[in-house]
Amino acid sequence: MSVPDSHPRAKSLKLRERLVDGLHKGLVTESGLIAHGRGEAFDYLLGERTHPFATEAIAMASALLTLAKHPVLSINGNAAALAGQEFVDLHREFPHLLLEVNLFYWSQDRAEKILAHLQSFGADQILQSRSAESILLPGTENPRRMVHPEGMGRADVVLVSLEDGDRCEALIAGGKKVICVDLNPLSRTGQKSHVTIVDELTRALPLLHEQMRSDRGVSADVLQARVASFDRRAILAAAIAAIRTG
Amino acid sequence: MSVPDSHPRAKSLKLRERLVDGLHKGLVTESGLIAHGRGEAFDYLLGERTHPFATEAIAMASALLTLAKHPVLSINGNAAALAGQEFVDLHREFPHLLLEVNLFYWSQDRAEKILAHLQSFGADQILQSRSAESILLPGTENPRRMVHPEGMGRADVVLVSLEDGDRCEALIAGGKKVICVDLNPLSRTGQKSHVTIVDELTRALPLLHEQMRSDRGVSADVLQARVASFDRRAILAAAIAAIRTG
Repeated sequence: MSVPDSHPRAKSLKLRERLVDGLHKGLVTESGLIAHGRGEAFDYLLGERTHPFATEAIAMASALLTLAKHPVLSINGNAAALAGQEFVDLHREFPHLLLEVNLFYWSQDRAEKILAHLQSFGADQILQSRSAESILLPGTENPRRMVHPEGMGRADVVLVSLEDGDRCEALIAGGKKVICVDLNPLSRTGQKSHVTIVDELTRALPLLHEQMRSDRGVSADVLQARVASFDRRAILAAAIAAIRTG
Repeated sequence: MSVPDSHPRAKSLKLRERLVDGLHKGLVTESGLIAHGRGEAFDYLLGERTHPFATEAIAMASALLTLAKHPVLSINGNAAALAGQEFVDLHREFPHLLLEVNLFYWSQDRAEKILAHLQSFGADQILQSRSAESILLPGTENPRRMVHPEGMGRADVVLVSLEDGDRCEALIAGGKKVICVDLNPLSRTGQKSHVTIVDELTRALPLLHEQMRSDRGVSADVLQARVASFDRRAILAAAIAAIRTG
C-alpha cells in the first residue's frame, strides 16, 4: 500500500512502511515495530518537527564526530530499515565514520540481511559487533555487549540510534563519548548519553550531514569551544518541556 | 521469552508478548504492533496507572452500557489479542453486551482467527462486521464502515478500543453513543467519542466489569443523573494535562 504525498501524515506513514517492509525482509524484529510506535508517539507530541534543542545537539554531535580519532556509527535493525541510505551517505562522504552493525536480537541471518541492505546503498566496509573477532565491552559477560575490536572496541565517539539503555551504559562505562538519537528524552539512553539528539532519525541525519560539511572548514579550536560550552542538562530539559507542553 | 514478575515493567512486557504472539497467530497486523507502541508511550507518560479521569469515564461508560437497549462491544485484532479474556468475561456476565469483531485490515482468515481466539475464552455468540448480512454505516461506501445489522447496525451504545478515527466518526454520524478506550486523548477517536476512557485496555476493562456489577443494584434515575452530570471536556482536559505534566 503506497501513501500519497498529499496525506497530512505522509512522512510518518512512509517511515512506517519502511519498518513493516524491514520486518518482512527480516531486518526488523516485532519488538522493533513496537519501539517504532513508541517513537511515533513522542514525535507526535513534538509536532513532528526538529526543535532548536535538537539542532543544538546536532551541532555538538558534529563537533565531536569531526574531532574524533575513531568515531563509529552503530546501526541496528530499525536504524538500517529507516535510515540505511542516510547512514551510508554520511559514511561515504566522511569515511572516518565507520559503520558497525550492532543488534539487540542478534542472529547470523539477521546480521547478514542488514549488511546486504546497507551494501545496497553503496556501503563498502561495514563492521559487525558479533563476529569471530568480537570483544566484550566492560561490564557483564552479556553477548549483547560484544563489539568489533576495530570498531566500537577502540572507538572514542559512538553515535547510537534508538538504542537500548543497558548497551548505552556499557559504552559509557567503556569510556566512549556517546551521542544518541532518541525521541524519548526520558529514556535511559536519552538520560545517560553525553549528547542526546531528541529528533526523528531521518530528519536528524541529513542535518548532521550538512553540519559536518560546514564544519569541515572550521578550526579544531572553534569546535573544541563548541564542545566545552555544550549544556547537556539544558538540552534535555528543553526536550522534556517540549514533550510535556507541546 | 517469558518475563519474570519481578521485572519493573513486567506488566507492559507481558502485554507486548501477547501482541507479538497475536501477530504470529495472524490476529494482529504489523500496523497493530506499531499502534501498540504508540499506546505504550502514552501509558509511560501516564505512569502506567489508572487516573481519576479514567475511573470517572468508566463510571459513565458503565451507566451508559447499563441503560442501553442494544449495546455492542466492538473488538479488533489488538483488542482481542490484549484483552480477549476480559471482553468475553464481561459479555458472559452481561449477555446484553454483544461482541462484534470489526477489523480495520479485514480478511476472512484474520476474522476467523479472531473469532476462534474469542471462542477459546468461552464466548458463545460473536457477530462479525463483515459478513453476508453486513450493512454500511452512513457516510462513504468504504467497506471499513460495514457493520452487522443485529450488532453495531442497530446499536444505541458502542464501546470501541484502540479505534481508527474515521470509523469512530462514522459510528457517531450513525447516531450511536460512542465510548472509547484510548491512551491518546489527543487522537481523533479520543477527541470525538462521547466518553473517552484514557487508560490501558487490560486495566480499564476489569474496572468497567466491577463498576457494572455494582451498578446492577442502582436505579435508572440515579444512572441517568450520572450520565447528565458527565463533563466530557473536563475529563479530556485532565487526561491531556496528565500526559503533558506527568
